[in-house]
Amino acid sequence: MPYVNIRITREGATAAQKAELIEGVTQLLQDVLGKNRSTTFVIIDEVDTDNWGVGGEPVTKLRAAANAARGET
Amino acid sequence: MPYVNIRITREGATAAQKAELIEGVTQLLQDVLGKNRSTTFVIIDEVDTDNWGVGGEPVTKLRAAANAARGET
Amino acid sequence: MPYVNIRITREGATAAQKAELIEGVTQLLQDVLGKNRSTTFVIIDEVDTDNWGVGGEPVTKLRAAANAARGET
Amino acid sequence: MPYVNIRITREGATAAQKAELIEGVTQLLQDVLGKNRSTTFVIIDEVDTDNWGVGGEPVTKLRAAANAARGET
Amino acid sequence: MPYVNIRITREGATAAQKAELIEGVTQLLQDVLGKNRSTTFVIIDEVDTDNWGVGGEPVTKLRAAANAARGET
Amino acid sequence: MPYVNIRITREGATAAQKAELIEGVTQLLQDVLGKNRSTTFVIIDEVDTDNWGVGGEPVTKLRAAANAARGET
Repeated sequence: MPYVNIRITREGATAAQKAELIEGVTQLLQDVLGKNRSTTFVIIDEVDTDNWGVGGEPVTKLRAAANAARGET
Repeated sequence: MPYVNIRITREGATAAQKAELIEGVTQLLQDVLGKNRSTTFVIIDEVDTDNWGVGGEPVTKLRAAANAARGET
Repeated sequence: MPYVNIRITREGATAAQKAELIEGVTQLLQDVLGKNRSTTFVIIDEVDTDNWGVGGEPVTKLRAAANAARGET
Repeated sequence: MPYVNIRITREGATAAQKAELIEGVTQLLQDVLGKNRSTTFVIIDEVDTDNWGVGGEPVTKLRAAANAARGET
Repeated sequence: MPYVNIRITREGATAAQKAELIEGVTQLLQDVLGKNRSTTFVIIDEVDTDNWGVGGEPVTKLRAAANAARGET
Repeated sequence: MPYVNIRITREGATAAQKAELIEGVTQLLQDVLGKNRSTTFVIIDEVDTDNWGVGGEPVTKLRAAANAARGET
């Protein structure tokens, strides 16, 4: 009866991709630990890029910097 | 000073129902463990059915299958 | 299919008390939202008092201060 | 590689304030524990006041009571 | 930069199995969403069976009942 | 009334360092958002290095590799 929480930035993951994550994690727990699929929960949280920080900066800013860098090339 | 996080699918829980959950959990922690009500936090997360999986499938799909099954009867 | 996470300080909750919390929360979710008991998960995390802070102080220190205050009366 | 999750009520925190929280927590973990900034994650969850309870009551109701009390003065 | 939290009951998962979960989830996020492996975090929490409830009962009790049932066959 | 959860690897953080984190985060939330210190919760989870993965590998293995690399210099 595992519980899995996947947190990603909200950047356009589709329902089909989320279904693939749910299936993939459920299968993995069955394969590695023999867990019962029917009582495996997977919850995906999509987080605004303003609300997710890495290296002390919001992802919003990191994405803007990466885009600017690409534009300059 | 307990912290309780309740995660449910976003399927129309009303403010009144959420208030009832908050009161009920707070009371339970007071009754069972003698916890101070004033420092008990309860946070309810409502999760889109596309983002919650059980048995390897998104709840969106499980609900649609259940509705279809009901329709067929 | 709710998921509930209860976090309390590790201060001697017994297995019987934890079973009472599990039953109580499961019943509450059934009563208030009609949730299916069989797919309700409740996970209790017991946290060392050094690792839990309120008001800027570890609970270890708050408990010691409360005990000292009681001793002084 | 710390992971920090800050949960606050959704009451108008700006992108600039959230960036300040991200930077502040990242710096704190570097100062106190020598953690590598580049692999420090900070995620901020903003929670509706109907979904956050303290002392058995939703914050929505606590805020309304506080406003009413201020109005009466 | 995904963050994944896997919660399972503490029932003897080995370090090798946990490494397999870490690798499997990281690969899945790369395959499905193109996520960068180097900033994917996976944290596994192992929870005592007294502290995990399903259907209103601690897993400790469910396991004992299942063992008793097997013994009776 | 913020709730902050700090997750770090279990690698010897002292009670004094954890108290410093608790105080620092509480102060930060007061400074940036005007949050009330007395209802700010900070919970620190220390996670075994076998149970924390980055880049698809358990931290246990990353630390061993780093130590080996240092030894070779």
